[in-house]
Amino acid sequence: MPSTVKDLLVSGAALTDAALERLLPGPETLPHSIHRAMRHSTFAGGKRLRPILCIEACRMVAGTLPEGIPDLGAALEMLHTYSLIHDDLPALDNDDLRRGQPTCHVVFGEATAILAGDALQTLAFQTIAALPAAPATVVAVLRDISLAVGTGVGPNGPLPPGMIGGQVVDIESEGHTPTAELVESIHRAKTGALITTSIVSGGLYGAGPDHAGTDTIARLRTFGEKAGLAFQIVDDVLDMTQDSAQLGKTAGKDTASIKATWPAVYGIDQSLRDANQLIADAFDALAPFGESAAPLKALAQYLTTRTN
Amino acid sequence: MPSTVKDLLVSGAALTDAALERLLPGPETLPHSIHRAMRHSTFAGGKRLRPILCIEACRMVAGTLPEGIPDLGAALEMLHTYSLIHDDLPALDNDDLRRGQPTCHVVFGEATAILAGDALQTLAFQTIAALPAAPATVVAVLRDISLAVGTGVGPNGPLPPGMIGGQVVDIESEGHTPTAELVESIHRAKTGALITTSIVSGGLYGAGPDHAGTDTIARLRTFGEKAGLAFQIVDDVLDMTQDSAQLGKTAGKDTASIKATWPAVYGIDQSLRDANQLIADAFDALAPFGESAAPLKALAQYLTTRTN
Repeated sequence: MPSTVKDLLVSGAALTDAALERLLPGPETLPHSIHRAMRHSTFAGGKRLRPILCIEACRMVAGTLPEGIPDLGAALEMLHTYSLIHDDLPALDNDDLRRGQPTCHVVFGEATAILAGDALQTLAFQTIAALPAAPATVVAVLRDISLAVGTGVGPNGPLPPGMIGGQVVDIESEGHTPTAELVESIHRAKTGALITTSIVSGGLYGAGPDHAGTDTIARLRTFGEKAGLAFQIVDDVLDMTQDSAQLGKTAGKDTASIKATWPAVYGIDQSLRDANQLIADAFDALAPFGESAAPLKALAQYLTTRTN
Repeated sequence: MPSTVKDLLVSGAALTDAALERLLPGPETLPHSIHRAMRHSTFAGGKRLRPILCIEACRMVAGTLPEGIPDLGAALEMLHTYSLIHDDLPALDNDDLRRGQPTCHVVFGEATAILAGDALQTLAFQTIAALPAAPATVVAVLRDISLAVGTGVGPNGPLPPGMIGGQVVDIESEGHTPTAELVESIHRAKTGALITTSIVSGGLYGAGPDHAGTDTIARLRTFGEKAGLAFQIVDDVLDMTQDSAQLGKTAGKDTASIKATWPAVYGIDQSLRDANQLIADAFDALAPFGESAAPLKALAQYLTTRTN
């Protein structure tokens, strides 16, 4: 990967990790079990892609990094981690391995894992509530993020796509031959919505209360939707082409259980072409911002060329 | 019960139910399963005590009911319902019956019940984000509520008591002979914190952005802490003295599994005396407000004399 992308990933992850370390109650905080479970899954080797996208969207809009942006990124990572803990539970995907580590319920038991996921969602909203920004900015960020982790599936329903909505449809579609429409709707909700709000909330935080709802935010949203879908398509392809050691999780699971994936509908070659086209569309949305959009574009490019 | 209390309960529950009906996605909204599961548990006969306390605290402070207060009450009820759905799961309390109805996972399966609980927490924060109030008021409400459903156990830890913290300690203490200190800490966190924030957030909403942190809010917090603890003590006593048909849930469960309850430490007579003393203390906290505190006091009195 280009050295600029590597720098963005390393510095963004460091900012995020420091914020998470500060915001998550320590392992000696009572009750021990839940705080250790929250930390186990939060510090299990995640790449912090959502916080990094949030930070760079904010930088593009504000030209600088305002106070509190690492905390906003950390809140997004908490929401991502909560969703992984609950997805991995025996009643859902029943996964024992995630990012090369035993999953939360394997180490701490099912009850603690359920509550640790619950608590990470709560801590994300506590963190948003404490952001050092104008109240109107905090509320704008809260609105966008809370909708993005909700139950909507879009695009024709009353609710915008949300993480839980995508998760529900994903579970319910298991074992059925996936259609193109179904796969796109799952991806846009299950992973796309949180990636999109990572970028949009970063933009809202950088823009401040007077600039919400502008063309800039609309363009960031389009960028997030396109790049988020491309990211998930590449994830699907990696699941089919890499082994478990490379992925740090159980490979081939999607195929084994007839899951709704992009390559299951279009094949691997077309999937990679689709991902590239989506990245090109994402780039177009940021065209008016010139050089200041370079970091976000470099990250989006990286997301579609990574190998794990 | 006095007719004034009955009127408060009936009118508060009607306001809350109308808000919940409007805020929860309809049963035909895709994906059906999760929205039906959310509605099943939300509309399973709850008395709406937390929203009613919120509404009356707001009325005491503002002298009237501002726009949006039913939505704030509904958000509190969503948080309460989410906690019940997850508490009832096989990995936690494994309860098949709640409020006289089959629990969420019995009807919809474990995966959907986990996600429905998750989604009710999210919808509560979406609802707070959309409250028609000054952004500073929304943020004040968000801060108090999000802390109250967190992982703290107080009183000497770094975090204030929170619903999840109490739930964790409750589970972990099962099978051990309970001490007075342990039972009080569980009750203040597991049920007390949400009841307290119901009252405090109602007060904050009624006071508006310029009046947060005043003596009024501090007094409402004391009232909530005392009344909340009394409420849970009476709940413990009812569990020991009523049968399942009267309670609408499995009676005697606390005793059967050696749970940390107030009567297990103090016996039933002392428990009822303690509850009455706590209510007297709660009344003292509201003494400066004279007649305007009458509805809140009547509700607190009702909470300690109810029979189910």
